[in-house]
Amino acid sequence: MSLFEKHQATINKAIEALHARTFYAAFPEQPAPAIYGETADAEGQAKFKAALGKKFEELKQTNAEGWAGQEESPYLQEPLKISYPVFSVPTLIERSSKAFQQWRKVSGNERAGILAESLERVKGRFFEIAYATMHTTGQAYMMAFQASGPHAADRALEAIAAGYEELNRFPSSVIWDKPMGKFNIQLKKEWRAVPKGISVVIGCSTFPTWNSVTGIYGSLITGNTVIVKPHPGAILPIALVVAEIQKVLAENNLDPNICQLAVDTFDKMITKQLAEHPDVKLIDFTGNSTFGSYLEALPGKTVFTEKTGVNSVILDSVEDVDKVAANLAFSVNLYSGQMCTAPQNFFIPEGGIDAPAGKISFDQFAQKFVDNLNGLVDNPKAGPFVLGAVQSKKTSERVVESEKIPGKVWLKSRVFDNPMFKNARVATPVVVEVEASKKEIFSKELFGPIALLIKTKNTDQSIALAKEMAQQQGAISCGAYTTNPTIKEKIADEMASAATPVSFNLTGGIYMNQNAAFSDFHVTGGNPSGNASFTNPEYVTRRFTWVGHREPVKG
Amino acid sequence: MSLFEKHQATINKAIEALHARTFYAAFPEQPAPAIYGETADAEGQAKFKAALGKKFEELKQTNAEGWAGQEESPYLQEPLKISYPVFSVPTLIERSSKAFQQWRKVSGNERAGILAESLERVKGRFFEIAYATMHTTGQAYMMAFQASGPHAADRALEAIAAGYEELNRFPSSVIWDKPMGKFNIQLKKEWRAVPKGISVVIGCSTFPTWNSVTGIYGSLITGNTVIVKPHPGAILPIALVVAEIQKVLAENNLDPNICQLAVDTFDKMITKQLAEHPDVKLIDFTGNSTFGSYLEALPGKTVFTEKTGVNSVILDSVEDVDKVAANLAFSVNLYSGQMCTAPQNFFIPEGGIDAPAGKISFDQFAQKFVDNLNGLVDNPKAGPFVLGAVQSKKTSERVVESEKIPGKVWLKSRVFDNPMFKNARVATPVVVEVEASKKEIFSKELFGPIALLIKTKNTDQSIALAKEMAQQQGAISCGAYTTNPTIKEKIADEMASAATPVSFNLTGGIYMNQNAAFSDFHVTGGNPSGNASFTNPEYVTRRFTWVGHREPVKG
Repeated sequence: MSLFEKHQATINKAIEALHARTFYAAFPEQPAPAIYGETADAEGQAKFKAALGKKFEELKQTNAEGWAGQEESPYLQEPLKISYPVFSVPTLIERSSKAFQQWRKVSGNERAGILAESLERVKGRFFEIAYATMHTTGQAYMMAFQASGPHAADRALEAIAAGYEELNRFPSSVIWDKPMGKFNIQLKKEWRAVPKGISVVIGCSTFPTWNSVTGIYGSLITGNTVIVKPHPGAILPIALVVAEIQKVLAENNLDPNICQLAVDTFDKMITKQLAEHPDVKLIDFTGNSTFGSYLEALPGKTVFTEKTGVNSVILDSVEDVDKVAANLAFSVNLYSGQMCTAPQNFFIPEGGIDAPAGKISFDQFAQKFVDNLNGLVDNPKAGPFVLGAVQSKKTSERVVESEKIPGKVWLKSRVFDNPMFKNARVATPVVVEVEASKKEIFSKELFGPIALLIKTKNTDQSIALAKEMAQQQGAISCGAYTTNPTIKEKIADEMASAATPVSFNLTGGIYMNQNAAFSDFHVTGGNPSGNASFTNPEYVTRRFTWVGHREPVKG
Repeated sequence: MSLFEKHQATINKAIEALHARTFYAAFPEQPAPAIYGETADAEGQAKFKAALGKKFEELKQTNAEGWAGQEESPYLQEPLKISYPVFSVPTLIERSSKAFQQWRKVSGNERAGILAESLERVKGRFFEIAYATMHTTGQAYMMAFQASGPHAADRALEAIAAGYEELNRFPSSVIWDKPMGKFNIQLKKEWRAVPKGISVVIGCSTFPTWNSVTGIYGSLITGNTVIVKPHPGAILPIALVVAEIQKVLAENNLDPNICQLAVDTFDKMITKQLAEHPDVKLIDFTGNSTFGSYLEALPGKTVFTEKTGVNSVILDSVEDVDKVAANLAFSVNLYSGQMCTAPQNFFIPEGGIDAPAGKISFDQFAQKFVDNLNGLVDNPKAGPFVLGAVQSKKTSERVVESEKIPGKVWLKSRVFDNPMFKNARVATPVVVEVEASKKEIFSKELFGPIALLIKTKNTDQSIALAKEMAQQQGAISCGAYTTNPTIKEKIADEMASAATPVSFNLTGGIYMNQNAAFSDFHVTGGNPSGNASFTNPEYVTRRFTWVGHREPVKG
């Protein structure tokens, strides 16, 4: 049985799910022993520990030109001392170009089978990847498992499915039979999906697999070769994924350089050199807006970006203010606000929020919000496992700095004890009240656990400001609370005009930060927070070109 | 019955045709009285003549800020003296922005019905459009009818169908039902296809409707408003189309400024001012590479270009050299080489072309080619009706200039009598022999009836040069003649790698210049001849953004 036959049902189901957009997950998100095996967690942790301080020798990229690695655990504040093989840009490009000539000729079916198989292998390493993610990003255990494991694998499968569907969208050949009156002109026509070439996928420090696998699998399924350039601070999680892809390629007698890992160091970054290389045709990027916009402007490249955004919450009217405050506090605490979907700007009318028992004043809501933040942080059974650690020192510094924002500081950042990691770099949220007129303060992303409570004249101003932020600065998510159907449609329409998806009236165990594979488009591509959306059709169609040849049918 | 219901079957059939890619045409290409009516041609001609020297008052754009028009007939070498209402860029943008707020809320079904209806109205004016096309572009009658009439309408319908399909690709709403163990999280999710905004469609002088309607209808079906900026030398054909669109809009109580005509003059072009306006989000362009590349680099715009290319013919081996020479001579003579798909560079091995009766030497083929060119030009019943007239003086000058190309001039350009138009600007093809080493000569588009016979070492060099031209300079079409299956696959593979479609072994009544709606992708988007292809899926998906909102289902 070919790998394609082995995985055909999975791919078909994923394509169906893409269209249905109802709940679907191919990889279970609970790290439960009943699902992943009794010993899987302990073994994964042991493997992660065994990797520390050593050379990472799982890759099939030969003749390393050096070894390097500068990862540091936000939980231990110590270097991981793992070193990875290092290759110069010319070596990476040369190998990718050579591998491209092989990979582009592998059929779409075969590619789909190989890629789906690699995900199955990655599934066997979800726990190891989880620990690698914790100790590079600072994510707490549960998020590290889910985001880097099953959720990332679902996103990768989504990209495989979307690519596979598009490769099969048009017939490979037809007879074109044109009646000309007395005779017919008959042409045999055939269409080829021609991959663009070398694809560079540039990773970020906070979601090293989740944000990279869609680009990797999207490019690979459509026949491009990939050079994965992780953030120098978060290599191991994606290195494990690349290693599994390379193993499956090698087992199928294919060049493992079809998917290469390109490690660099903070002092000698190779990203620009890679991106600007004329043979690089595709670039995927997650990270800051300045670099993302530079990449988007490179001539002759197809570039997919997820950049920064300023996410808003519009508070108009609520059914149960306590549930709302709890939900939003969780959203801000989750991974200490280091998600691209985390809310930052909370727009609250100066006259307060409507509720069944009467108005909740601005101050009442602010206090409830702060109480909920504190309640979660101070719960030793929950706090450390929701907030995790802070990935970079810069974020910690930004949090401290944000207390100087002119306005009432409702909550200062502080530290808390992580029972497992005494030396963890942690920071709880800062909450500052800001006047709506002080646009310069809230018109930028303040990455990390920083929440601004912005006092507006009314909900109309809240909507106008949230829309303006999305259009000018970008936005990946938006939360809104209203019990008024007219206001709800206004928010839906205005934020849609700014290409920003809105989560309405979330309470309980679902948060505006979350984006589900096979259902939610992550980033819309329609505002400055990014020019692409995974996985919509153009996310894969732009990675290849349809070319049609034709010839008369012999009479 | 709504317009959508009226045209639903047409749209469904067009969507089917898009996928089947076999022969399909919704608008008959023969200007036959039995199809279009006994008096249609005469009436169309009379209407065209009646328009000359007058104000064009069919548009529903009110309060003209001036009247202007500088069109000139290549057949008469006299100005048409038609003047069109002129509007400043701020007026055009303001009206488009206002109309956008209305059009974006019209459902996809309604838009599809209105647009399909407008094509039916345009069908009633095919002959008038044909005469307008002749006397602006210099196309001969048959091409003017087909390209600006039924073929353009088919391309427009194709864009409507593709857009309509993509708008309906995902459900407008679903219940997302995620099992959480003890309970389920249920979200109501909905997706909106959000148009990008104002679209500017920039026309060219040679195919004023065919090259513009895909952008116009592609943007309109997806909810954008359109400003049509024709070439100042070829306004009337597309003005008639815009007028019909505006009439249908007005009849349906919609703002006719949803689709505006923006006329300018050679001395005061408004294209850059329009394109750079921050409210313009979409740009469609057909024309020269310099301006096209400038547009592609504008930040924050979605740009679709068809630029220039250098189209090759690879001659390796033939079954019947006379049929080949005849077919290629027709391709070069057709509209005096003024098609973006016309061949320019003919790569012929110095050792000659293989044929059943032995080698055809380079010189033998050159002579046959020249003889066929002359034979067609000198046939008074065919020549004038194939070559038509030369649209611009610059092209005529280029043809004369090309006789100075260093190499043997096999055929000089000359004039011929057009029985209907004694004063027509005409030029027959120039044929020059060029050494393969003189790449600087053939590495650029020589727009017009100019054919270069390039002597190569062998077919491998021919393929390498044709590929290099396509990758470096762009190519929209390629012709190849080979009876060897191995060489055929090599050409197919190498040219596909350069994103260039190949027509193999064409003889008889089908030419490499032709691209059929619903089957051939026109321009691939994968080489410098343009970054877009009509109509592939991304040609329409990039005109709008999917935005998903969600809210918990009430328990």
